[in-house]
Amino acid sequence: MSDPAIRIALVTLGVEDLARASAFYEAMGLKRSRASQATIHFYDMDGVVLALFPNDMLAEDAGVPGEAHGFRRATLAWNVPDAAEVDSGFARVMAAGAVSLKLPYKTSWGGYVGHFADTEGHLWEIAHNPFFPLHANGAVSVPPPREGAKQ
Amino acid sequence: MSDPAIRIALVTLGVEDLARASAFYEAMGLKRSRASQATIHFYDMDGVVLALFPNDMLAEDAGVPGEAHGFRRATLAWNVPDAAEVDSGFARVMAAGAVSLKLPYKTSWGGYVGHFADTEGHLWEIAHNPFFPLHANGAVSVPPPREGAKQ
Repeated sequence: MSDPAIRIALVTLGVEDLARASAFYEAMGLKRSRASQATIHFYDMDGVVLALFPNDMLAEDAGVPGEAHGFRRATLAWNVPDAAEVDSGFARVMAAGAVSLKLPYKTSWGGYVGHFADTEGHLWEIAHNPFFPLHANGAVSVPPPREGAKQ
Repeated sequence: MSDPAIRIALVTLGVEDLARASAFYEAMGLKRSRASQATIHFYDMDGVVLALFPNDMLAEDAGVPGEAHGFRRATLAWNVPDAAEVDSGFARVMAAGAVSLKLPYKTSWGGYVGHFADTEGHLWEIAHNPFFPLHANGAVSVPPPREGAKQ
């Protein structure tokens, strides 16, 4: 197909408290872009940009009602090179104000994963997945389709 | 800081219907990784991996109740090089089964953006942002912090 494939350039997380959310992500090592403004903060994550933006403004932008309850129906995964870094990363996110959902554990598929929510309730996991190698910058890669595979 | 910064390696979207969701994203040019399994499909997006996974299994993994209503509190942005590609991209996502939320329009900040939901209700925008240059692979970059900036 000659058209470009859909891709994720930015992930914008709705926040109840922008200062609180920014303090969390900055404690986790992100640097606020100078393009940030009073109501939106941008962070370059080397492959995807994270934006933090108030929930009500985000709903208005998307043209949808802003009421929301319960499960977020999406998770973000931070993959790290080994199980020890899952443990140390989990300790760091807790120290930065995250909410623990599942302490790191060995998964049925051979990984090691901890689950937490950020200060605004967004779901994250810290994962060591021995089957998905990491690039030098921490991005993960998955194998291409099988040759001749029917999608 | 010597510890690595938090980053988004994978975005996992909860789906009501995995076949329907996969058909949408594959119509938009993504190729299913051979690491995909019956209940989870992976797509390499060159910088971040997209996973599609049933909502109930995703909630169980995260250790949270699966009930959910209303606003998704997050949006994904697909940035493209110019306004014409916003229009053509928007037409493509509609043809692939997306729900239109806001037809592409000129924003107050100088961009050109259309909003849609995928087949599972996840919020997306297609954006031309003249202030955020695109890399060759379509990733967006934002300016670094100001020199000496206090976070």
